[in-house]
Order: sequence, then C-alpha cells, then structure tokens
Amino acid sequence: MAAAAPAIKVAALCGSLRKASYNRGLIRSAMEICEESIPGMHIQYVEVSPLPMINTDLEDGGGFPAAVEEFRRKISGADSFLFASPEYNYSVAPPLKNAIDWASRPPNVWADKAAAIISAGGNFGGGRGQYHLRQTGVYLDLHFINKPELFVYAFQPPAKFDAHGNLIDAEVKERLKQVLLSLQKFTLRLRGQC
Amino acid sequence: MAAAAPAIKVAALCGSLRKASYNRGLIRSAMEICEESIPGMHIQYVEVSPLPMINTDLEDGGGFPAAVEEFRRKISGADSFLFASPEYNYSVAPPLKNAIDWASRPPNVWADKAAAIISAGGNFGGGRGQYHLRQTGVYLDLHFINKPELFVYAFQPPAKFDAHGNLIDAEVKERLKQVLLSLQKFTLRLRGQC
Amino acid sequence: MAAAAPAIKVAALCGSLRKASYNRGLIRSAMEICEESIPGMHIQYVEVSPLPMINTDLEDGGGFPAAVEEFRRKISGADSFLFASPEYNYSVAPPLKNAIDWASRPPNVWADKAAAIISAGGNFGGGRGQYHLRQTGVYLDLHFINKPELFVYAFQPPAKFDAHGNLIDAEVKERLKQVLLSLQKFTLRLRGQC
Amino acid sequence: MAAAAPAIKVAALCGSLRKASYNRGLIRSAMEICEESIPGMHIQYVEVSPLPMINTDLEDGGGFPAAVEEFRRKISGADSFLFASPEYNYSVAPPLKNAIDWASRPPNVWADKAAAIISAGGNFGGGRGQYHLRQTGVYLDLHFINKPELFVYAFQPPAKFDAHGNLIDAEVKERLKQVLLSLQKFTLRLRGQC
Repeated sequence: MAAAAPAIKVAALCGSLRKASYNRGLIRSAMEICEESIPGMHIQYVEVSPLPMINTDLEDGGGFPAAVEEFRRKISGADSFLFASPEYNYSVAPPLKNAIDWASRPPNVWADKAAAIISAGGNFGGGRGQYHLRQTGVYLDLHFINKPELFVYAFQPPAKFDAHGNLIDAEVKERLKQVLLSLQKFTLRLRGQC
Repeated sequence: MAAAAPAIKVAALCGSLRKASYNRGLIRSAMEICEESIPGMHIQYVEVSPLPMINTDLEDGGGFPAAVEEFRRKISGADSFLFASPEYNYSVAPPLKNAIDWASRPPNVWADKAAAIISAGGNFGGGRGQYHLRQTGVYLDLHFINKPELFVYAFQPPAKFDAHGNLIDAEVKERLKQVLLSLQKFTLRLRGQC
Repeated sequence: MAAAAPAIKVAALCGSLRKASYNRGLIRSAMEICEESIPGMHIQYVEVSPLPMINTDLEDGGGFPAAVEEFRRKISGADSFLFASPEYNYSVAPPLKNAIDWASRPPNVWADKAAAIISAGGNFGGGRGQYHLRQTGVYLDLHFINKPELFVYAFQPPAKFDAHGNLIDAEVKERLKQVLLSLQKFTLRLRGQC
Repeated sequence: MAAAAPAIKVAALCGSLRKASYNRGLIRSAMEICEESIPGMHIQYVEVSPLPMINTDLEDGGGFPAAVEEFRRKISGADSFLFASPEYNYSVAPPLKNAIDWASRPPNVWADKAAAIISAGGNFGGGRGQYHLRQTGVYLDLHFINKPELFVYAFQPPAKFDAHGNLIDAEVKERLKQVLLSLQKFTLRLRGQC
C-alpha cells in the first residue's frame, strides 16, 4: 500500500480584481479539483485587493502596514504558490505584481519555494505575462514548474467560462489538474519528500 | 538662420511613489535640462499616485473614475513620453504599470507616439524593467527610441543623488540630456517635422 | 492624382534552413503580394545559409569572410527588413540570429531602419521568438512596426501551407499584406516621405 | 564524519567560438575550482564548434549527423549543465543556441536536469542573454539555479582576464565557486540526494 503524500499548503493569488475574473475562476476550479481528487494538497486563496500600492515610505515606522503584514504571514506559511493572472499589455497585471513586491521586501517570504503559473486571456492566453513573471521569480528565488504550462484561450469557442467566471470546460479542467499534480510533485521533490 | 524646432510636450511618469525617489529626481533633472538648454521641448510631470489599482469593474458606469479620466486627458494631450522607473524584482514597478494600463483602456491614448525610458537602481540600473516595458510598448503602439539607453547605477560611487533624490552627477546629467535630444528628434521625425 | 509612393527595397531573411520551411513560404507569399498589389515596395530574399557560424576570430585578417561581406552588402543596401522565423525552444532560430550578428559587426549595417517580423509555428505561432528578436533590435537600432503582428498557427486546421511550404490560406495572405503595408508606411515615415 | 557528496557530472558549454574567449576562460576556471575544492563535482567541457547549423532536413535519413549524435550523447550522460556565454546583440550567442537546439530534438536530452548560467561581457556582463536562455530552459525542462547569478563585467578595471582569456581575478573566482556549489546542491536536491 502506498504511503499518503505529505500534506502541502498552496497559496493561490489572482492578478485581476474583477468580480467575474476568469483567472479567479481558474483558482476556484483548482480548489475543487484538489478537494475532490488530489489528496494531500490544499489550496488557500489569498486576497490581494486589500494591499496598498507599493511604496516603501509606508515602512518608515519600521514595520509594514497591517494589510501587508497579514498578507506576508499567509505567503510565509505556504509551501508553494499558484499564480493565476491575466496579461495586461503584454506583461503582468499590477494587482499581482504589487502583491509579489510587498512580500519580497526583506525578509523575502517567497524564497526557495515551488510555484506554478496559469492564465486565461485572449491571444496567447496570458502567455507573455507568464514569461515576465518567471523572470521575476529568479530574483524571488521561486522554483517554477516547467511543464505543463497552461494558457486558457478564454475567447475561443466553445465557451470556457460562464458569466460569473466559473470554469466550465472539462478539457481545461483536466489540464489544470495536471498542472496541480506537477506542482505537488515538484514541491515535495524540492523538500526531499518524493 | 535655423528655424526653431516645433514645440513638443512630453509627459513624464515616475514608477516609484517614494518621496525621495531617485527616478523622480531624474525627471526633475530632465525638466531643468529642457528649460535651460533644449528649446522647443517641454516636460510635464504627471502624477500617478491618485490612480486606483486597475479594476475594469470600476468602468461599469460607462466611464472612468475621475482620477483616471484626468490622467488619461494628460496622456492624450502629450506628444511623447518619458518613463522613469525603478526595477522591482526584475520587472516594472506596479505604480507605473498601473498607470500605463489605465491609459491603455479603449481608446488607448498612448498610441503611435514616441517614448523614452530611463531608470536608476542597483545592479543593472533598472535595465531588466526597461526591457519588459518595451514589450508592453508593442501593444500600446509606442515607438521607443533605441539609443542612447540610460541606466543609472544609483549605488556605485561617486554618489549620483543627494538625500532628497536630486541628481547631482554631471556626467549622468549629460547622458540624460542626450536621451532627451534623441526623444525630441524621434518625436519630430515620426511627425514628419524633421 | 496621387503621387506614386517612393520606391523602397526590403531585404527578407528566413530563420529556417529547411527546404520546405513555412517561414520561407511566408516570404515567397510576401514577394508575390508586393509584386501584385503594393506599388513601390520590392522584396529581395537574402539567403543566410552560406554564412559561417559567428566567430570574430574570422575577422582577424582585417576583413570579413567573403560570404559575410556579400551578405552585409545586401543588408546595407536595403531600406528596411522583413524577418520570417520559426521559434526554436522559445527563442530565435540560430540561422537568423547568426546572420543578424554578422551584420551587426562594426559598422552595424542594420542601424536606423524599419523592420517587421512574421512567423509561423505551433503554439504561439512563433511569438516568443518575435519578442526576443525585438529586444535584439534595440541594440541594432532597428525600428520595428508595432502593428499588425502576425503569428501563423501552422498546425491548426484548416491547412495554412502545402507540402512545399507554400502559403495557401487566403485570410493569412490578407493579414500578411497588412503587415507589408504597415512596413512600407513606417519605412517612408521614418525617412520623412509620408 | 560527513558522508561524501554523491558524484555528479556537469557538462559545460561555451557560447563563443573565439580562441581567447572570456567565457571559455570562465569554464576553465570552473574546472580548476572543482578539481581543487569541490569534491564530488566533475566538469566535462563539451565542444560545440563541430555542430552544423541547425537544419532538421539533416535528420532525413532517420538519424542525426555524426557530430550531433556525439554531442547529444555527452549531454545525455551529464547530470547537470553549466552554460557560459557572451551576449550578442542583447540575446544568446548562436553557437550555444544551436547546440541547445540540436540536443532538444526528440528525444530532448536536456530534460529535468539542473543548470547554471554564467557570462562575461560588457555592460550588463551578458545579463540580457542569460534571461533569454532561462526562457529557453522552460521548454527544455531545465531547472536553473536562481542564486547566485554571475555577470562578469569583463571590461571594467581591474582586468578580469589575461590575453588568453584566462580568469585572473580572485574575487570573480570566489563568486564562480559559489555558483558551482549552488549548482551541486541543486543537482543533488532534485535527485533526492541531499
């Protein structure tokens, strides 16, 4: 009998603030997939909207603003990360980059953990933004999984999302599951547990 | 006698919200250089701090929030652009990217204008962020000058900035002037005026 | 009666050495489109296969190898450039990059000219390679058109190319024509002729 | 007493064909450092100059050209990789990219191994090329170490290399050693051996 996989906690961040965001829909779907069929992997959605726009003058008192402090605590407590973000103007969406930058302030709480990026959008399905985020990961010292990559072509038929941003496409769900399994495996591998 | 160069208005944006930002210091220096020694080129500093974090749900009433509307009007009225931004985590600073994204919402008010990027920072002097911004410019339809590039190594001796973020290095000032002259020339060339 | 557009010579380079290359097929199609329907624009196909792998020791005699010399002469004589290249491993194909590097050796014969990139391939249709090539263009001092971009999804139905690599898709041909018209316009604009 | 680290074989590739290449000098120095002070880590220099320019028509007989076959065998037999390459025109040098592309042909013999990049050059010390190479690594399924990065500013005093391209700077040697130790550690970690 196979031993159960050690439990891992994944913090999931969404780059869009839109209520019906497709990318937040991807995260909801990822959470369902984990609960239903990936034992040992738990995804916690971490909200980025309470964070102020980055400005290190806000650290002048010697600490971080309360919302930043709470956000950093959640990042610090996670074993790995799932980023879901639209591409804005061929690069990363500001709400996500802003959250990343706050948690990188010393001490950098991203360091030496595994991560995966998924995205939904037009054209390359958010692809250009993913590669910029990977470059950011070098400085953060994140270890991104290489494969599989997931780019969801949100505007190509058949419909991938409903009007609330819920993922409704079975094939994309299956590909999303493969991303999660790869992230689980890489997280454990980096920790010497598989 | 040479004809005077046609007047151009340049909107300058800073990617840092820090009060003593080196990059805002570069813009102040650029404004002085223009006034003193570049006839026909006028730089207007455009503040990005009043802008809300990008969220297209805020357009639901059919218009933009007031601060966004005012910002877009200034961008729309400019002939070309000067971006001065630090690099955060190997990519663009969120305050600048956020401003760019708001002004790109239809109708995109950046389109078909000339632009230049300058940056101050550690390591590559903000260079990695400059190349990400150039990729964003493809979608915005900005025409960046290629040369000269300006990367200010803010932490290498001798001191480049004073405690208020004012540029105090004569050699960097001269290189900044060359960037401005190149931007002026390219702006006029794209308009068929040189 | 409208004046004829001033004549421009475009040098076209292909990044693949394959005989039935789709990207060379794009260039053949571009040449036909120009002849048939774009007065004033002439495309010359410039072969990159005779060039040796870049090695500046080959310049030790004080000149370039004969094949390099001839290639540089053709680049030097062109008014603008059309690059058609597959993406290899998420970046530029070596035969094209090699040609570009040879012609950049002092004096850089690419400088201050307009250019366009087109590509055919799987996945993003060669898109990742296009953005790397754009970064190379900053140093070369090339002025790339921003729009329209052309990414040909070579393996999505319906068939875009025949077995010889000839472009057979009418819709792609029309989009290719729009790229050429944009390149023509930008070339003339940069020369102050439109 | 600590157990000896399991032995790993690192294949080192140089992106320049120049006889007195600084980047090949970095590899020679890395080999010396390993022999002298990093037990368990052995670097094999793999020559890329015999490889033909990539052209998949050369595979038409069903196999690879002999030089390619031999090169692929060496890559396949390595546990991890050290790339040392100059930056040409803000991107990767063709001799290196060509070698990478040949070894990526199915079956991709780079897959799932650790790697590090080092570079010497002007300006950013080869940095722009390193980030392009990292993007290529996503498709190859290479796992690059994030830290430390090594950019050798070859033309800043004091002299870093002698006339034969030998690294003569003690501080750079120490930083190179740290890169090698990080690569060793990451290679073992990915294999579950540390």
